[in-house]
Amino acid sequence: MSGTESPAVAVRRGRPRDAARDRALLAATLAVLAESGYGGLTTAAVAARAGVSTATLYRRWSSKEALVLAASAAFAADLEQRPDTGTLEGDLRILLRDKAAGLTGESGRLMRALIGEAAHNVALAEALTAALIDPVRDRVAEAVRRAVARGEIAPLPDVDLVADLVIGPMVSRFLLTAHPSDTQDTQDARGTADRLLPFVLRAVGGQDASGDGGFA
Amino acid sequence: MSGTESPAVAVRRGRPRDAARDRALLAATLAVLAESGYGGLTTAAVAARAGVSTATLYRRWSSKEALVLAASAAFAADLEQRPDTGTLEGDLRILLRDKAAGLTGESGRLMRALIGEAAHNVALAEALTAALIDPVRDRVAEAVRRAVARGEIAPLPDVDLVADLVIGPMVSRFLLTAHPSDTQDTQDARGTADRLLPFVLRAVGGQDASGDGGFA
Repeated sequence: MSGTESPAVAVRRGRPRDAARDRALLAATLAVLAESGYGGLTTAAVAARAGVSTATLYRRWSSKEALVLAASAAFAADLEQRPDTGTLEGDLRILLRDKAAGLTGESGRLMRALIGEAAHNVALAEALTAALIDPVRDRVAEAVRRAVARGEIAPLPDVDLVADLVIGPMVSRFLLTAHPSDTQDTQDARGTADRLLPFVLRAVGGQDASGDGGFA
Repeated sequence: MSGTESPAVAVRRGRPRDAARDRALLAATLAVLAESGYGGLTTAAVAARAGVSTATLYRRWSSKEALVLAASAAFAADLEQRPDTGTLEGDLRILLRDKAAGLTGESGRLMRALIGEAAHNVALAEALTAALIDPVRDRVAEAVRRAVARGEIAPLPDVDLVADLVIGPMVSRFLLTAHPSDTQDTQDARGTADRLLPFVLRAVGGQDASGDGGFA
């Protein structure tokens, strides 16, 4: 493929190969981000890891920032699932465990790299909000709506805050701690999510299955 | 004062003046951090703003990092208060409002600058945890202990998680959003803290004074 052919021709002729190459480039971006942070990431390093030229990379994404935004969005899409377990407790357990997994291990390292940069990069912060925060808000709102429809809980005012009760404690626990999250065992994180569940359930007016409300 | 006199002599002769100069340097550090971020902060800019030479600054703090750590600790000490309002609701309201105030406006801008750096600077992350997170954990644990002693709530397992329920939602709301926190009105933040209060109270098994449990 020459650099001068029109994008329309490239799309028509090369879609399957382009899609595979795009996926490889986005995966390479995530790997380099997790290793080197946003500041240390270069498009040359990403291209080299994906086995393509930087010219090929730039034909698809015009800047390092655009590349990182696309990689973040792809990463978030991979995490996306909206299970309906039939109970508020079940739905919240999955949400909390997903969040715990997303903030520890390799994806925790990635989140640290991105959050550090997002603190002073509004475009990246907006993209991260859209890719990582808003979907969780939607999932939490859905779970609460289903629970209200089933008569499990009373309608809640300020339902927008429930998402912060799910996201926030995991963030303060795993991202604002002194030690890089890759030293946090993802299994421990799951345990923390499960310990947090009774608090969140009570916060929204639900009951946990153990019947003792999580109290000692 | 020459650069060659011993620290002991400097302390004996100049303590009041040194203390005032230290405070001016730490205040200048916070101002430059909030304006320029950690990466943009130079000891020369801090010294110039405080009206001292960089040699004077370096006699007190040996590096940019040591200076920022000291400024963070001083900032956190200023925020520290442990009011006992006599009710769990009152104590949690103050904690949530304090946290909201600390994450918006000028101190929010500062927190963004520090958290961005802490994402890949373990020494700074440890200092921030000790200065900003641990004291909130202690305050929350105290408030819960008093509430249990008064018979307001049953003893809680996993009381360590209550602090994350107080800190976390404010963080996910004000630090992980797309827009710099200085555009967030601190008055709005206080409103968010107050809306969150019934959720946190229910989470720990308490009742809010309105009697309707915050439900619609």
